[in-house]
Amino acid sequence: MILYDYWRSSAAYRVRIALNLKNIAYQSVPVNLIKDGGEQHRPPFNQLNPNELVPVLIDGDVELNQSLTIIDYLDAHYPEPRLVPRDERLRYQVTALAQDIAIDIHPINNLRVIQHLSKTFGIDDDGKQDWMRHWINKGFNALEQKLTVTSGKCCVGDEVSLADVCLVPQVYNARRFGVDMSSYPHIVKIVSHLQQLDAFEQAEPEQQPDAT
Amino acid sequence: MILYDYWRSSAAYRVRIALNLKNIAYQSVPVNLIKDGGEQHRPPFNQLNPNELVPVLIDGDVELNQSLTIIDYLDAHYPEPRLVPRDERLRYQVTALAQDIAIDIHPINNLRVIQHLSKTFGIDDDGKQDWMRHWINKGFNALEQKLTVTSGKCCVGDEVSLADVCLVPQVYNARRFGVDMSSYPHIVKIVSHLQQLDAFEQAEPEQQPDAT
Repeated sequence: MILYDYWRSSAAYRVRIALNLKNIAYQSVPVNLIKDGGEQHRPPFNQLNPNELVPVLIDGDVELNQSLTIIDYLDAHYPEPRLVPRDERLRYQVTALAQDIAIDIHPINNLRVIQHLSKTFGIDDDGKQDWMRHWINKGFNALEQKLTVTSGKCCVGDEVSLADVCLVPQVYNARRFGVDMSSYPHIVKIVSHLQQLDAFEQAEPEQQPDAT
Repeated sequence: MILYDYWRSSAAYRVRIALNLKNIAYQSVPVNLIKDGGEQHRPPFNQLNPNELVPVLIDGDVELNQSLTIIDYLDAHYPEPRLVPRDERLRYQVTALAQDIAIDIHPINNLRVIQHLSKTFGIDDDGKQDWMRHWINKGFNALEQKLTVTSGKCCVGDEVSLADVCLVPQVYNARRFGVDMSSYPHIVKIVSHLQQLDAFEQAEPEQQPDAT
């Protein structure tokens, strides 16, 4: 299995966690999103994924983009542990929380959005931080309220799920951009628990071979 | 079934299409996202969904947010027609295309992002249009390439799927913000086909009771 990866990509980070949780060996092919304007915008990568975004997963003749689709595929073919529960009530709790992060927070804060803001409005590092914090705080305020109902050790009960796989990379970003986490005790507690698990630890950006 | 809705919300528009395709009667409860700063930010709606976003679907004691989770629920309980195919190859094509739109294009162009850009950088209507067009063109360039491989009458073959349910609202937005669609012949052809179907026509923003 081959993962087109970048150490600081939140979406790739999700897939690394999922692969580790399922004990799947994989080869990481780093795509440098920064150097010389970004390898994702040039062949061969932009032929592999015209969206010019990581991750892309190759498993034999299966070629997939979109982290949530990749994890759905992994759940079907490598079901232990399942990241989207079979139980219906838990399933919708998990996918809605995962999408609260992967749709409502992360895309607005993606590298390419920050680059475009910088080019269009000339924002500096403080402006970037303000933008990141605004959207993360908005999302985390809602998430914290929801977790008071759904969480145990993890986002939904005590079992690791897709929601946790999305939460940990988002909290990594939040800390990187100086979000004050003291208002989010449930999020902090859950992430402290998850970070002790090998699968999460080995997926951390700084543990990746392309980390600089 | 109750749908908390707003005529111009792309995410709510997706759910309206899905409900119509499955012939499910529902009661629409409009949430005015504009008037007096937006009803989504105040009780009772922000207690129902702390994310302060539509849609929310209520079906008996089931209460769901996130359009993709809602459609997953509808697919499980009202399976005709299925919007995410059971066939594995088709399934991943459909979900990846749907996420290319619902994750990589739409969230960056959401009303609240435009409002925040306006407040932070004081952009005018031209600036808003430039922002919208930039992200839609980026996404549609990739999508058009992918559809040359996957499409028939619809995004994936000839059957309506979740990808189509996401595409039509995104093209509505593209036209509203003056995107030149001439570079996207596959997208245009597919949407022309879909717009003739009753389920899509009756879900159009201008057909909704709260349209102004």
